Amino acid sequence: MNEFEFIEKYLSSKKKGKKFSLSFRDDVGYANNSIFSTDTICEGVHFLSDDSPSLVAKKLIRVNVSDIISKGINPKYCLLNLSIGKNVDEIWIKKFMKGFDSDLEFYNLNLIGGDTSKTLQTTVLSLTIFGNLNNKKFIKRSSSKINDNIYVTGTIGDSSLGLFCKKNKIDVPKKHINYLIDRFSVPIPRIELVSFINKNASASTDISDGLYSDLNNICKSSGVGAKVEFSKLPLSEAALRVLKKKPNLKKLILTGGDDYEILFTGPNGLDKKKNITKIGKITKEKKINIVDFDDRINLDGYKHEI
Amino acid sequence: MNEFEFIEKYLSSKKKGKKFSLSFRDDVGYANNSIFSTDTICEGVHFLSDDSPSLVAKKLIRVNVSDIISKGINPKYCLLNLSIGKNVDEIWIKKFMKGFDSDLEFYNLNLIGGDTSKTLQTTVLSLTIFGNLNNKKFIKRSSSKINDNIYVTGTIGDSSLGLFCKKNKIDVPKKHINYLIDRFSVPIPRIELVSFINKNASASTDISDGLYSDLNNICKSSGVGAKVEFSKLPLSEAALRVLKKKPNLKKLILTGGDDYEILFTGPNGLDKKKNITKIGKITKEKKINIVDFDDRINLDGYKHEI
Repeated sequence: MNEFEFIEKYLSSKKKGKKFSLSFRDDVGYANNSIFSTDTICEGVHFLSDDSPSLVAKKLIRVNVSDIISKGINPKYCLLNLSIGKNVDEIWIKKFMKGFDSDLEFYNLNLIGGDTSKTLQTTVLSLTIFGNLNNKKFIKRSSSKINDNIYVTGTIGDSSLGLFCKKNKIDVPKKHINYLIDRFSVPIPRIELVSFINKNASASTDISDGLYSDLNNICKSSGVGAKVEFSKLPLSEAALRVLKKKPNLKKLILTGGDDYEILFTGPNGLDKKKNITKIGKITKEKKINIVDFDDRINLDGYKHEI
Repeated sequence: MNEFEFIEKYLSSKKKGKKFSLSFRDDVGYANNSIFSTDTICEGVHFLSDDSPSLVAKKLIRVNVSDIISKGINPKYCLLNLSIGKNVDEIWIKKFMKGFDSDLEFYNLNLIGGDTSKTLQTTVLSLTIFGNLNNKKFIKRSSSKINDNIYVTGTIGDSSLGLFCKKNKIDVPKKHINYLIDRFSVPIPRIELVSFINKNASASTDISDGLYSDLNNICKSSGVGAKVEFSKLPLSEAALRVLKKKPNLKKLILTGGDDYEILFTGPNGLDKKKNITKIGKITKEKKINIVDFDDRINLDGYKHEI
């Protein structure tokens, strides 16, 4: 069961909360003139026991920041659930809190509450984050229109290629490998684009589960389809170098996840802005058509399992 | 390290968020005219793998509801983090969501968002809950005054005696045993007292870590002490029956936890209301003095470890 199926099965039919949860068709909730999001990262799944605790803290904050800014909203407050497992000691907590504090400062976030507990085994970390609607507007996932352009910020696939490079040896200059591994270790949400997205996007989401899967979420919740030109996808020099050595990794660009860039739709011309690339069009036909991509992969299989 | 030490060590010195977190001296946070709380329950620690999934869901909601209502605020919205471990299958999730839905309905709560993920081992469940300040007022933990009376709602110790009875055979009529085990399995937060607390209490908290520990939190954050008459503590008939058989369990009344009753301070006469008992006085001397309790126990040891 993936998260979309969970929502359809257990939540969509509920009357309560529909108004505030945007019928669970979005990746955020809305209440009291604020936008809410919450994300959990689990030891052994989203981070490893020997990862830098400071980077784990930054990852926790940034995957949540990424959700809120993709709606064109500045995050302002957060609550932390620290469920500490067997592999964590006080030194780990100290380093974790140092990274956490540094990112609170950087993103101008107020920690307003939390909970600490012990688990029987692995560490589980949740953050709940919210920000205010200043102009009564935020960008939903479910509001793409036919013929909208599809845009992404930054470059796609670096993080999943970074994970590959972390696990496998590959003959590419060290600086490129390091660049990709850094992109995997700590997301860099596009906080500088909050106002631009709020002003210009018709629908928006961050890319966390992978470009294909997150575009699928936009399409499903908006009741539309998409045509994407694979050759238009913005790739970093480092990614191009790795793909030259390992062409079969191409599918990671579509399915890899953890990019924490913004995927949004809107009118013509938004790609005049730096770091924004047009990659396709929203279509009436309710399917995702990836043009000039000929690898045979089962894209439907790439969904985030709960 | 317990939660109080964690807060003193890593949070109290921080400038950011102090205003909204009430300097971390309270068990709730304040932002956007709302009161926020979050609590996590972990498999093998706060619930067992073979506990009824529906009751686990109710426990998750109610421990959080309890936090908010002890501030004199009605909870209104929540977000759920479902981090599913190896022992959980779809049938478990289905039953869990049934109990969850039923309590959302009962407490008139709106689920506005959440996150589902898989852990490597045990299940970890977090809920973040909030409610609006209708009259601009909520009751803090840090506002007890010298000479205030100390009150509790309901009866104390039932839940921890219930846990004992679940684990040990004891020669007391079945109906009493069942009563205590029920009190352990599903808290019954005193939602009917929200307005009364909001109107009358000078300081308030729910009793989750145990009467002694939660009173200690009120005293520490208010800069006062307390004198409690052990013989005044309200005990259920079932609790009295168990204590008669096992007098050495008396200390559980003070330290056992999971009561989810309300501990509050205020002026004379609040015990005229049904289900409210006066148990002592707030003192200038910054220590907790338990009168007519002669068991030698190290009460300082009973703190909730993270």
